[in-house]
Amino acid sequence: MKKTAAPIVLLAILVCAVSCADRAPAKKITDFVYQYSIMDALLAGVYDGNMTFGELKKHGDFGLGGFNTLDGELIMNHNEVYKMRYDGSIHAIPDADRTGIAFVKFFRPDSTFAVHAKGLTYDMLKDSISKRIARNSIYAIRITGKLKAIQARAPHPATKPYPPLAEYLATGGQYNFDFENVSGTLVGFYMPDYMEKTNIPGFHTHFITDDRKQGGHIFDFVTDEPLTVEVDQAEGITIAENTHPDWQKLNLKENRQNELHQVE
Amino acid sequence: MKKTAAPIVLLAILVCAVSCADRAPAKKITDFVYQYSIMDALLAGVYDGNMTFGELKKHGDFGLGGFNTLDGELIMNHNEVYKMRYDGSIHAIPDADRTGIAFVKFFRPDSTFAVHAKGLTYDMLKDSISKRIARNSIYAIRITGKLKAIQARAPHPATKPYPPLAEYLATGGQYNFDFENVSGTLVGFYMPDYMEKTNIPGFHTHFITDDRKQGGHIFDFVTDEPLTVEVDQAEGITIAENTHPDWQKLNLKENRQNELHQVE
Repeated sequence: MKKTAAPIVLLAILVCAVSCADRAPAKKITDFVYQYSIMDALLAGVYDGNMTFGELKKHGDFGLGGFNTLDGELIMNHNEVYKMRYDGSIHAIPDADRTGIAFVKFFRPDSTFAVHAKGLTYDMLKDSISKRIARNSIYAIRITGKLKAIQARAPHPATKPYPPLAEYLATGGQYNFDFENVSGTLVGFYMPDYMEKTNIPGFHTHFITDDRKQGGHIFDFVTDEPLTVEVDQAEGITIAENTHPDWQKLNLKENRQNELHQVE
Repeated sequence: MKKTAAPIVLLAILVCAVSCADRAPAKKITDFVYQYSIMDALLAGVYDGNMTFGELKKHGDFGLGGFNTLDGELIMNHNEVYKMRYDGSIHAIPDADRTGIAFVKFFRPDSTFAVHAKGLTYDMLKDSISKRIARNSIYAIRITGKLKAIQARAPHPATKPYPPLAEYLATGGQYNFDFENVSGTLVGFYMPDYMEKTNIPGFHTHFITDDRKQGGHIFDFVTDEPLTVEVDQAEGITIAENTHPDWQKLNLKENRQNELHQVE
């Protein structure tokens, strides 16, 4: 028995290694953004999904998203997932929990630079980053530093039947927070215009403090301190369809860009 | 030396196998459609790309697309790539050649059924398939059988500066063919409405005869014979950005759905 065991194990490993090499070179996958579900589904009111964070972590260690029933904002950094709830509380999330929408990447920065200006705002930062990236490419972007003031939000959990996202957030579903003098990390993506319908063209950023006690979806901030910006260009994106039954009931033809501008 | 060689090889294989398992389970990749570039880039006049067919075959053995300079229609079946040129000629394509746009999948049908009706047209076939698939999912579809009459097209190679695709095809770039009483294979995809901008919502099909002597992009056909339809549902799609310099010059915000309807 022992004599045959080793060759059999080796053969099994070889078969796996060969099939990976033939069909899915690791480089091709790990330098792509991976997303579960699409923004237009969330806008249409599909808030639930079946993707576990354990499975999501096979596709990235850095990212953004939401939680089933729209219970808070999701931020993933260094392979750790946190939920930022409507009441301002922050929670570490186990791999068994599920999401209805998330965008992740294995974060491997291609370039790092500092942005420093008195009264630097989110718009000023986005302008500065835009000058250093290609407008038709996809980027994961990590920004670290101390912020003087932040305006952020997180949604309250919704109950079925779910309304469209813009309507829900405009009628009491959205809770806003102001933070002051906090050090932390902005986790974000830049998406080109062809990601209309599937993601959010332009910049999309969530924030969490270093002490993991505050955070949310970013509307604006201001700082006088230097920020460190790490930029990771992706080769493209993999879109996994939402496997929840609500997905197939969707009208995905409708143009929801106006709704998108209301919620972002 | 010999004594250390085997463990080192085993270790190397284990490392590869582990990284594949952690980051890119084969199942997750091979059951996705993979595309290079996007339809809106082709519509805008980006006809060239850097994707070799050798590289493309790592992501699928079945698919559709075009060739650099818009030199013909591409059809891939059973891992073989053929070019169908404007003059009606068919050419087997080496792995070293490149494409500016292609959609491929490892074709593994989930269901197979027959469609048979006197005077069956392309629209009737699409209606029949639509009843058996989920409207918000992505499918690779292979149809085989004998067709009584086919209307197809292939483009003439273009010269730079390339005009937008709809303008080019409408001003002499498109050559039409009629075939009669041919047996062959229709290679196609169904894409849901959220693939607007990136691919072609609805059905998109190319045809090649069993003798590999005729084929093209399908406008319509009619047959009295039974057709065999194989349907392969994808979990989603990977979009690789076109790596040609023309990509970054694109305006991808413009809505090109009217141009798309002119060319399809």
